[in-house]
Amino acid sequence: MIVLESPLDMHLHLRDGEMLKKVAPLSSKEFAGALIMPNLIPPVTTKKRVVEYKEEIEQITKKDHFTPYMTLFFKSNYDLEFLKSVKEEILAIKLYPSGVTTNSQEGVKEFDKLAPTLEAMSELGIVLAVHGESNGFVMEREREFLKVYEEIAKNFPNLKIVMEHITTKDSVELLGKFDNLFATITIHHLYLTLDDLAGGLLRPHLFCKPILKTPKDKEALQEVALSGYEKVMFGSDSAPHPREKKEAPGCAAGVFNAPVALSALAQLFAKKGKEENLQKFVSTNAQKIYNIKPPKKVVKLVNELFKVPNEYEGVVPLFANEALEWRVESVV
Amino acid sequence: MIVLESPLDMHLHLRDGEMLKKVAPLSSKEFAGALIMPNLIPPVTTKKRVVEYKEEIEQITKKDHFTPYMTLFFKSNYDLEFLKSVKEEILAIKLYPSGVTTNSQEGVKEFDKLAPTLEAMSELGIVLAVHGESNGFVMEREREFLKVYEEIAKNFPNLKIVMEHITTKDSVELLGKFDNLFATITIHHLYLTLDDLAGGLLRPHLFCKPILKTPKDKEALQEVALSGYEKVMFGSDSAPHPREKKEAPGCAAGVFNAPVALSALAQLFAKKGKEENLQKFVSTNAQKIYNIKPPKKVVKLVNELFKVPNEYEGVVPLFANEALEWRVESVV
Repeated sequence: MIVLESPLDMHLHLRDGEMLKKVAPLSSKEFAGALIMPNLIPPVTTKKRVVEYKEEIEQITKKDHFTPYMTLFFKSNYDLEFLKSVKEEILAIKLYPSGVTTNSQEGVKEFDKLAPTLEAMSELGIVLAVHGESNGFVMEREREFLKVYEEIAKNFPNLKIVMEHITTKDSVELLGKFDNLFATITIHHLYLTLDDLAGGLLRPHLFCKPILKTPKDKEALQEVALSGYEKVMFGSDSAPHPREKKEAPGCAAGVFNAPVALSALAQLFAKKGKEENLQKFVSTNAQKIYNIKPPKKVVKLVNELFKVPNEYEGVVPLFANEALEWRVESVV
Repeated sequence: MIVLESPLDMHLHLRDGEMLKKVAPLSSKEFAGALIMPNLIPPVTTKKRVVEYKEEIEQITKKDHFTPYMTLFFKSNYDLEFLKSVKEEILAIKLYPSGVTTNSQEGVKEFDKLAPTLEAMSELGIVLAVHGESNGFVMEREREFLKVYEEIAKNFPNLKIVMEHITTKDSVELLGKFDNLFATITIHHLYLTLDDLAGGLLRPHLFCKPILKTPKDKEALQEVALSGYEKVMFGSDSAPHPREKKEAPGCAAGVFNAPVALSALAQLFAKKGKEENLQKFVSTNAQKIYNIKPPKKVVKLVNELFKVPNEYEGVVPLFANEALEWRVESVV
């Protein structure tokens, strides 16, 4: 048996509207809290929307002990005054790379524009969460972005920076070089490589960004996650799309893994004989990094088959129709 | 205007049954000949089947001046006697490592057992055409196979070896190291990288094996093809699948490019100012390497838009719904 206290998912897409209603309960049932991504259409950029979105999530998940930790979508016009006004409502601000290029010269220019907001965040203790990819070749995007992480980490030593959903050995290595760098890791990047997406037949349900990487990268991610290393947290990056959208040509990126997350993590950690580190990876590290106290929740997993459903109301999960070796037995 | 004499497609999948009837005329109309791949179900491994398959193709393409150059599916039990008996019917024998692409399950598993057959082929002057991929990580399969090419090239100096549909810079470089190594290059690998398949949304119609590679690899392929280098030939690897099969999860590998091939090549060579080398790439080099005299056919391309159809009877071509800058004006 594996017992987890207050598991946390520190990178979660809950969407809005009908999809939110479908997927939020699948996270709130087993997790004590999650960091909710702000990339709705339009993105969450005002205090009003953060509060409304949070209330919407709470309304749906109220029967569970579950805290949605909210984020804002990074804009370089956020100033100290605005951030002070919104500080109590959010845990982090999420930076997406659309404005950041691979080119180092343009990168620096861009960086200059970010500085006032990063300075203010640093002063107020707001965490910077980053989707760290360049606009370059798909297998090199994360690697190319590392210099931006280095630059920000160096220039804002008091700013906590979370490298979201890291996927490469290089990213793991960078973590150790700056005290203020942290990271989340997904389940699909712990389990899969590009071979699973495109090595045999093409499997659109495994298509995600950052794209699945190499066996060496996967090994490095597993090693650091399984070690319980204090700078690394679980973040599912669970990103639901309707089945029709995933199975049509022009399939959108995103793997829906929230409902299989704890089973899959238990299976991996147990298989490698590292059960004792799962609590750190899935809760304790995040509590320390973000300085949060999630609701109390005790999740018991047993070493019994969990036959993953084909879909959850039209959304196909990771490991659909496969069997995982651990299942959630109780949540108290 | 670009005038091509007897263009050849030295790597073509025509399939059988209904698909053969649909796609063969799209190649025979504009090409003077093509090397026909033997990976049917079951694969073409007997003289009887080669002859029957050839007659079937000729029946469908008889109104055009078109020669189907036939191949056998490599088996390591082919002996000198068998090969003598079939020699007049084939131009090459195609070797598939087991399991690496569509219908290759019956391919080679043990490379140390190939020697007697390769010796006999060498003696009879039968070309060895190879799908050169390992069973390793999808982006490294071709690189990992290069040592097999080296070994065969070294041990059988009189055997002509064609590295089929090469996709990497390393393969281009290996070409220069052995007199008896040659190569084909596809259109999709000249035009596309993994970014086109999976850098934005996922595009199953661009899913192929070997998988699309990096920008550097593409550059190296373009450079050697555009140079007119005598060891390199055009081979479309045009591999039709019905639309339903390409657009469903578990999409099979293969890009259908035969009907856009000459327009796409003309566009690429013209854009790079290398029109004068297209004849070599698309015919002359192959005639010398294979020592063949294809039927006479003159294809004129003009610098006018060719709006590529959405599909050809249920088969979606490369560049569907896009416009190419050159179109075939006449075939005489």
